[in-house]
Amino acid sequence: MSKYWSKLAKKVEPYVPGEQPQDKKYIKLNTNENPYPPSPKVMKAIKQATNEDLKLYPDPTCEELKATLADYYGLKKSQVFVGNGSDEVLALLFMAFFDADDSILLPEITYSFYPVYANLFNINYNLVQLDKDFSLSLDGFSEPNEGIILPNPNAPTGKYLSLEFIEEILKKNIDEVVIIDEAYIDFGGESAVKLIDKYPNLLVVQTLSKSRALAGLRVGFVFGQEDLMEGLDRIKNSFNSYTLDRLALVGAKEAIKDEEYFQETRSKIIKTRERVSEELRKIGFKVIESKANFIFVSHLRVQAENLFNQLKEKGILVRYFNQPRIENFLRVSIGTDEEMDLLIKTLKEIIE
Amino acid sequence: MSKYWSKLAKKVEPYVPGEQPQDKKYIKLNTNENPYPPSPKVMKAIKQATNEDLKLYPDPTCEELKATLADYYGLKKSQVFVGNGSDEVLALLFMAFFDADDSILLPEITYSFYPVYANLFNINYNLVQLDKDFSLSLDGFSEPNEGIILPNPNAPTGKYLSLEFIEEILKKNIDEVVIIDEAYIDFGGESAVKLIDKYPNLLVVQTLSKSRALAGLRVGFVFGQEDLMEGLDRIKNSFNSYTLDRLALVGAKEAIKDEEYFQETRSKIIKTRERVSEELRKIGFKVIESKANFIFVSHLRVQAENLFNQLKEKGILVRYFNQPRIENFLRVSIGTDEEMDLLIKTLKEIIE
Repeated sequence: MSKYWSKLAKKVEPYVPGEQPQDKKYIKLNTNENPYPPSPKVMKAIKQATNEDLKLYPDPTCEELKATLADYYGLKKSQVFVGNGSDEVLALLFMAFFDADDSILLPEITYSFYPVYANLFNINYNLVQLDKDFSLSLDGFSEPNEGIILPNPNAPTGKYLSLEFIEEILKKNIDEVVIIDEAYIDFGGESAVKLIDKYPNLLVVQTLSKSRALAGLRVGFVFGQEDLMEGLDRIKNSFNSYTLDRLALVGAKEAIKDEEYFQETRSKIIKTRERVSEELRKIGFKVIESKANFIFVSHLRVQAENLFNQLKEKGILVRYFNQPRIENFLRVSIGTDEEMDLLIKTLKEIIE
Repeated sequence: MSKYWSKLAKKVEPYVPGEQPQDKKYIKLNTNENPYPPSPKVMKAIKQATNEDLKLYPDPTCEELKATLADYYGLKKSQVFVGNGSDEVLALLFMAFFDADDSILLPEITYSFYPVYANLFNINYNLVQLDKDFSLSLDGFSEPNEGIILPNPNAPTGKYLSLEFIEEILKKNIDEVVIIDEAYIDFGGESAVKLIDKYPNLLVVQTLSKSRALAGLRVGFVFGQEDLMEGLDRIKNSFNSYTLDRLALVGAKEAIKDEEYFQETRSKIIKTRERVSEELRKIGFKVIESKANFIFVSHLRVQAENLFNQLKEKGILVRYFNQPRIENFLRVSIGTDEEMDLLIKTLKEIIE
């Protein structure tokens, strides 16, 4: 603490990302990265763009990348906004659509950055309770609110909500923005992007960090009707004109364009997820049905924290959240088949 | 305007960056980019880092880059903060050190993003008046304030303040933070970095966009005592964990390390600036003495706006600010000798 800090710097409770230990080489199943490399076309495009033009500012409005995304999703370019990872996009959304002292709704168990943003911008939040099996029910979204944010699939549970469910939330709250955070949508869910022309209050957030294997490049985006994007642009252009560097812009474009590679790698991950879920169930794990690139698991006998520590000791990193209701669960990212086989083997050894 | 916008989105007055027209190829002397390419070592390092690891998140605390910067400037790593361009760093500084309704001081004519940040975060500002020749006097910094921000050299005038002057500001305002924005310091000024251990209220902002020729990579930093950096980290980690991508981190490190290339290119720019200043004076321009990679010029007979338009028509872009006191000046970035020779030739044609 310092007398020079703002009130804000004193009161915030910063987000803590998954650990990136440097002490030894781990099998990293703790931050939901993609186990496969980015498309070779991405690498090629970035290398080509690593030239003298790096001395010049990037395009502040990211026209080419927006056009590529719009084309891919059947949207207008004016319905697309891009940012430095979906975390930056989310922070800017909070500024553009929620006022200080507003009350917003978010799921009781969810991405832990949402309450951090709320604190940062002096926004109140009420939690929509989850059922015993971590399901959301529509009733919770009938509470008075000045905005809603939820991930679909949810994190860290991996539970997916149908588009019909999302539409009901949108209809019930037509006067408030509803932010659907689709960081994990490509692993088996159906995107709400197709609802954008129908609902003026819908914002759909996505990222290249998971299904496009580009966590290291920092690119996220949001889709919504044109007037929502305009408001967001106003905030972004009051914060930082150039949030995406030239290499990220080029790499992102190629990642979206290489549909074949995308389909191939996400199919592999889905297949591995289904297989691993089955095998873990056989050895006494409760595995929540997941539409993400991770599974949320709990063992019938062995405590999650114990499993977490023993796995770490044996060189496998998973994510453990020491918080009410989920303190006996582990979130395990889907790695390659080889990595997951080693995980299962190691878990068997620990459990026996 | 949309009913969904926050009060903030409605009231902000976004920053407008220098134009990046796509209609034809211009000689770009309008956004203070470096005319020379980045160090070849930067390119090599980025190409090497364009590999499978892009699937992994970057280091959120940027340890290696911080260590490189600390080593270069004789600081501790805990006295360094890095961000996605100095504009992002500035935005985060406003959040970390100024409260809503605070009154801060900034120069009457200065980087036009400062009032934009102030509006975004509901911070009031008072302008420190400039003398007739655009000089700042110490008296202006004796006004009551809750913080000070100023560029050194100033933009768009290019005028430089000595370290003795900066020290006087720091002493007079020891209970408030003083942010010295040194985006252009490497073109002839002396950095206030060496004062950091002496003044607990000093923050020194720098960027790779100008003297390191990496505007396209988006890397900026700030130096200050450890407790100031801690407050800033708290805000950054409440906004976006991973602001710098893997390629920017690697490229930035190499840029700092290639001292020989840096000295060579900045010397060339300084030499060109001095020569061009002299030549423009000979054809009737008032040229403010500059320690930046741009000059601020006004012609005795021909109006600046007229010159701006005619230059643009002839394929040369410079920056014109249509605002009181400087509406008869042009800001001209220092390009290569060939580019500047063409500028001078073209100006002669227009003036005659």
